[in-house]
Amino acid sequence: MEHASFSPVSRVAICGGTHGNEMTGMYVVREMQRQKADQTGSVSITTVISNPLAVDACRRYTETDLNRCFTKALLSSPITDSTPYEVRRAQEIDVLLGPKGSQQAVDLLCDLHNTTANMGMCLIFYSLDWLTLHIYKYIESKMTSAPVRAILLNISKSEAYSLESVGKHGFAIEVGPQPNGVVRADIFNMAKEAVDRTIEWLHEFNSGSTFEEGEVEAYTVVKSVDYPRDPTTSEITAAIHPELQDNDFKLLQQGDPIFLSFSGETVKYEGEDLYPLFINECAYYEKKIAFHLAKKITQTLPSISVKKD
Amino acid sequence: MEHASFSPVSRVAICGGTHGNEMTGMYVVREMQRQKADQTGSVSITTVISNPLAVDACRRYTETDLNRCFTKALLSSPITDSTPYEVRRAQEIDVLLGPKGSQQAVDLLCDLHNTTANMGMCLIFYSLDWLTLHIYKYIESKMTSAPVRAILLNISKSEAYSLESVGKHGFAIEVGPQPNGVVRADIFNMAKEAVDRTIEWLHEFNSGSTFEEGEVEAYTVVKSVDYPRDPTTSEITAAIHPELQDNDFKLLQQGDPIFLSFSGETVKYEGEDLYPLFINECAYYEKKIAFHLAKKITQTLPSISVKKD
Repeated sequence: MEHASFSPVSRVAICGGTHGNEMTGMYVVREMQRQKADQTGSVSITTVISNPLAVDACRRYTETDLNRCFTKALLSSPITDSTPYEVRRAQEIDVLLGPKGSQQAVDLLCDLHNTTANMGMCLIFYSLDWLTLHIYKYIESKMTSAPVRAILLNISKSEAYSLESVGKHGFAIEVGPQPNGVVRADIFNMAKEAVDRTIEWLHEFNSGSTFEEGEVEAYTVVKSVDYPRDPTTSEITAAIHPELQDNDFKLLQQGDPIFLSFSGETVKYEGEDLYPLFINECAYYEKKIAFHLAKKITQTLPSISVKKD
Repeated sequence: MEHASFSPVSRVAICGGTHGNEMTGMYVVREMQRQKADQTGSVSITTVISNPLAVDACRRYTETDLNRCFTKALLSSPITDSTPYEVRRAQEIDVLLGPKGSQQAVDLLCDLHNTTANMGMCLIFYSLDWLTLHIYKYIESKMTSAPVRAILLNISKSEAYSLESVGKHGFAIEVGPQPNGVVRADIFNMAKEAVDRTIEWLHEFNSGSTFEEGEVEAYTVVKSVDYPRDPTTSEITAAIHPELQDNDFKLLQQGDPIFLSFSGETVKYEGEDLYPLFINECAYYEKKIAFHLAKKITQTLPSISVKKD
């Protein structure tokens, strides 16, 4: 595989509180602000509480999901009296850290999230990017407190909606399990270490180190599974089966129990062998998802280094 | 100890969704409604979704905590345009299941709650009542899926504020750990079994069985512990220490770690040996509590049976 080179990654943004009831990012950002960690070696760091009103309300959002507001269309839409708070806030963040797609945008944007599911430490990549996958490879090799996994989505640049898409490079850090509205020390420490390792990697990268080619494993989402529902009321009629609950990333095979109805019947899995992710997550108010199913792929990375002037 | 006798307990209310983001009670109640479990032997059962607006919003409450609205004063306060929804709803429930303190009130009110803390199955008694403590003793002896504990508060009749106080007898069932907004099958099954065992006990009681005198252990709350906070901003500066997190009911002793600050310092416990409860619970929006501390008491119960006409 050919070698790839990238411009220095000097301007970094660390964001938390994009979802106002996911507490880890908010406390990581506040602690970095308290420590005035805005410049370390070759890297300048901007810290942002993305959705302060939702943080105050301890809600995912106030009017609409902020992490769906960073499309080109919404970022350029005119502000009127009926514009949701989160759309206004997305435009403010775009001024601060972008403009998205421009040379002025931050070099790397790292957005901190939590999940109630037993996902451990995940890095979520919305598009294929050798640089951020090399950061993942580094974090994965260094962290010992929990398994570190990569989730690779494939959202085209024109459709990108999430906060990380404002940066030239970006990824989300997703850590769990942690109830919404709660901060756990173990989860905080994992997220903080991932941020510290990212900045550590950037220093090495900016100073001219070459990162060798290699392989990483990543999960790509194939489909989503809904809860069994009452056909007339649409109400959920079963919970995740105890044998599936908390077993994110454990291969799901034909015949494995997936649901236990409230009256006691077991529903079994039918389909190809896949990996369940975000099992029984509390995230979507409008439409709860029971879990996602992913396949595991191996991604080959080229060696990379900083572009010389 | 003398024998005590009580009138038959024929009219029972099972309530869920008093806090709209605690999902177990809501699904237990809906399942009982689906199964039309409104009469079983000597017991008639009324099932109530206490706070339907908060359930729809997946919030603890919409305007004020419903489970603080069942005081005599609020139940008799005139309704005006500025009356919070939950006060109106409390008055509706008082008409349906009360009036509180009257002969028309249901004989037993059982209110289902969840906690994000690792509390297992708890029955919460707001006042000393031989009948409900006998129900606890029965459930405790029958359930094998989790430890069952009794929490005994001491709130005078004139100050009673919680939903269970509408019934002639009452208690809350509190089960955890479960994130808000999530229903777990294991937690659902525990709560459902506690309800089924309660009704089982009532049948035996109403049919004339004598329940022998004995002892129960109960936890009584002594004080609450706040998180370390920044003196100027009041923001939390530490999380529960990993050695304390999830160790509800494990005796806390002088020198045990209780907090880990976001910059890495450990705070140790100073004080008498006590039992921590509701560690790092997500319940109070206005004022988060780190944990409560309780002592364990032994309560002697008289033998009881139904009062003969």
